[in-house]
Amino acid sequence: MTTELNGDRIWPDLRTLTCVLSPEVVARDDGTTTRILVVRLTNPAGELLDTAMFADVDTLGRRLLVEHGIGGVVVTGPRAGVFAPHFRLGEIAEGAAALGRPVPYAAARAAYLAVRGLSRVTAVRDRLLDSPAAGIAELVRTHEALTRLGAVPQVVVSAIDGDALAGGCELALACDLRVMAEGDGRIGLVEISAAIPPGAGGTQRLVRAVGASRARSMALRASTLDAATAYSVGLVDEVCAPAEVLEVALRLAGEVARRDPAAIAAVKRTMQGGRAFRDGLATEGAAFVSTASGSAAIARLRAFAAASDEAGTRTPWRDRSWLR
Amino acid sequence: MTTELNGDRIWPDLRTLTCVLSPEVVARDDGTTTRILVVRLTNPAGELLDTAMFADVDTLGRRLLVEHGIGGVVVTGPRAGVFAPHFRLGEIAEGAAALGRPVPYAAARAAYLAVRGLSRVTAVRDRLLDSPAAGIAELVRTHEALTRLGAVPQVVVSAIDGDALAGGCELALACDLRVMAEGDGRIGLVEISAAIPPGAGGTQRLVRAVGASRARSMALRASTLDAATAYSVGLVDEVCAPAEVLEVALRLAGEVARRDPAAIAAVKRTMQGGRAFRDGLATEGAAFVSTASGSAAIARLRAFAAASDEAGTRTPWRDRSWLR
Amino acid sequence: MTTELNGDRIWPDLRTLTCVLSPEVVARDDGTTTRILVVRLTNPAGELLDTAMFADVDTLGRRLLVEHGIGGVVVTGPRAGVFAPHFRLGEIAEGAAALGRPVPYAAARAAYLAVRGLSRVTAVRDRLLDSPAAGIAELVRTHEALTRLGAVPQVVVSAIDGDALAGGCELALACDLRVMAEGDGRIGLVEISAAIPPGAGGTQRLVRAVGASRARSMALRASTLDAATAYSVGLVDEVCAPAEVLEVALRLAGEVARRDPAAIAAVKRTMQGGRAFRDGLATEGAAFVSTASGSAAIARLRAFAAASDEAGTRTPWRDRSWLR
Repeated sequence: MTTELNGDRIWPDLRTLTCVLSPEVVARDDGTTTRILVVRLTNPAGELLDTAMFADVDTLGRRLLVEHGIGGVVVTGPRAGVFAPHFRLGEIAEGAAALGRPVPYAAARAAYLAVRGLSRVTAVRDRLLDSPAAGIAELVRTHEALTRLGAVPQVVVSAIDGDALAGGCELALACDLRVMAEGDGRIGLVEISAAIPPGAGGTQRLVRAVGASRARSMALRASTLDAATAYSVGLVDEVCAPAEVLEVALRLAGEVARRDPAAIAAVKRTMQGGRAFRDGLATEGAAFVSTASGSAAIARLRAFAAASDEAGTRTPWRDRSWLR
Repeated sequence: MTTELNGDRIWPDLRTLTCVLSPEVVARDDGTTTRILVVRLTNPAGELLDTAMFADVDTLGRRLLVEHGIGGVVVTGPRAGVFAPHFRLGEIAEGAAALGRPVPYAAARAAYLAVRGLSRVTAVRDRLLDSPAAGIAELVRTHEALTRLGAVPQVVVSAIDGDALAGGCELALACDLRVMAEGDGRIGLVEISAAIPPGAGGTQRLVRAVGASRARSMALRASTLDAATAYSVGLVDEVCAPAEVLEVALRLAGEVARRDPAAIAAVKRTMQGGRAFRDGLATEGAAFVSTASGSAAIARLRAFAAASDEAGTRTPWRDRSWLR
Repeated sequence: MTTELNGDRIWPDLRTLTCVLSPEVVARDDGTTTRILVVRLTNPAGELLDTAMFADVDTLGRRLLVEHGIGGVVVTGPRAGVFAPHFRLGEIAEGAAALGRPVPYAAARAAYLAVRGLSRVTAVRDRLLDSPAAGIAELVRTHEALTRLGAVPQVVVSAIDGDALAGGCELALACDLRVMAEGDGRIGLVEISAAIPPGAGGTQRLVRAVGASRARSMALRASTLDAATAYSVGLVDEVCAPAEVLEVALRLAGEVARRDPAAIAAVKRTMQGGRAFRDGLATEGAAFVSTASGSAAIARLRAFAAASDEAGTRTPWRDRSWLR
């Protein structure tokens, strides 16, 4: 990538994210200046999303809510050609197996709603994350973390150079704007090929983003779109050469960040999903827990993990072997 | 059509539907196999949709809910060039006339909600279908039948070779995926040209499928789209030559049916409409009853019926005389 | 424009609107005839939208609800090349300043909901418009007036030749159908560049019209679309030469107005937004009041007004100086 980021790392306690303020200053309409925070996904465990990373995204969002010095955020991958390929499916397999038996949908929904309610008290949530309900508590945290990313007052832009499949697509969908590089990278909700539904809000966000007809089709068929196609259906906002993706994302973030912070926050707030969106998250959460805890899903997820290397550099989605 | 279906007919008690298991077997990801059910619309009364056919679709859906041997469903028309042109409007005229007088919207809404509630008890519903509220009970059953078609655990694909207007469009919209043949066939909600609004869920599904702006425009203008245009706005998922429509639909159904059944069901469940969709159905139902029971609508529907032949091979929509 | 309107002006008490029945008669499907009302935005105060004009739109909608002789409505601008460029921002600045201090979001939401409830009693509403809550009462009236424009039984078509930015875009979005002339005119929600969010329902209508992804992007980036682009995303229904915009809009209105009035009203009713839409309006209203009452917004709005001429012929949006 052409843009060099040599600034000091901030929030080094976020172990899976490298957060650096962009060196260029954004001149605001009102004469003041601000900066764009670049959040690089640099999980020491490898290139895949995992629970540790969503925990950091959760913390990141809480900080952004009160961090008035930052005017915008760009989320980008660890290296050229890599964004957030997908979530580590082996973790889902083990979390689901820990539930001990398949959870019926109605029970999963009740559990999801109970955990979501309890999670509003942080101390209780931390206990839940260390309980037999840990899997559900982590799912709730992921839902809340991605919803918060869309709700922080700053504009959040994802710079996608490489795959954004399944959880990677859901992370991208949770951002306000998306830049995607031409090339081999694909975006899509391909979870069904691993015997699970999307579980990080993607079912609700994709329907709202591109309409129910296209969204349902994409998720059922495990469709993956290249950058040009994603652009044509309104799923990404800019397409560019891979070498320029960070630059374009920074420009885009700056284009919004120059506006009044209260107005940015107000536009974001008014164009969120509302009650129906939260209801939909509960449906998704319950369907996810119920499906993933079934023996077929656990077997399939373990087969996926067995066919992957530890860092996620090679998996049945990255090499497309499960997407044909 | 090139695909020959010589399998045994199943469920012969469904008199308007010819149900045959596709001879080709779908190899599932988990090593098992499944089959696609082909549902051919073969109403002895003619090529139009009617109450008897929606009653059979209702029964079909109930069976699919518990039929685990079937991995997917393709809904197709009775012959090359014909899908489900539209509902038989003469039936609507007589059902509306039987109400005796125009029903105000508020009364229609109360009646719709009461009948919907009562219909959950099958025995009560059967009584209602034989009462002065029969028209409303049939409308509710149609709404429930098409909603269930979207909610069965199997993927449901419509193979549209020919017109899918009004009720035919609504049937197609209730399927998960749509294949449409190039040619003279058109898809659209043209009810307004017969002095009624759409009444089988189309108002709610089209808005969700293509956005409120395009959907409202299509329904107000009685627009009909050819296959290419329908594809470009995301209303259909594949376009092909007429001779290939069943083959493509079977391939598409198989592409999804190879996935884990629980995951397919979970994706479908999470991408349904929720409470706002059901509220919208009630609004549609009430607006439909209220409008259709007016004298202007009854006269117009009867004029339509008078200009149609009995089998529906020639009607003011099929020959486009009311769509200019 | 090629269509001459020499009919008698009706409702001359609407001082900002020139209402004339189109000379051409629309032949209805049932053999009767009807006429299209052309509503020309002719505010004596200049070319911008303002409170007086929305008050007249409110009255217009109430009359259309009971005016059965009119089959359709076309909303058009005062002269060639001008539709409704945007709302007069100086009025917003002074209304917000009159609140005396920044209103927190929660308080703004409570106030909005209270005023909306009270406004159902017309006499109370008129008092509110003359109280310290006047700004909120005017916002509520604007929301109600535009919602009613979408809810009148007649089809409403906007004929856009020139800019439809911010409030002008929101007025266009409140119509059932939109015709837009090729040329320099642009459509978009550009409010953020003046430090406020959209406030006349645009956040809710744009999301529903073009999907949440494109809508959020447009509002955050202050994007403006030319006619061809607006057509390609489904935001406008017809594009034509500037000289033909009124003619095309009249043809489009006539195409719908020939249908049965009850059916038109029923289609419109079933494709409205429902409860989630009204919830969304409250969110928008509260976010608008809260943001606009902040000192940054007031300063920015006043700077905008200071850079504008009185009639709105030259403003930082019309000359694009704030949109670069």
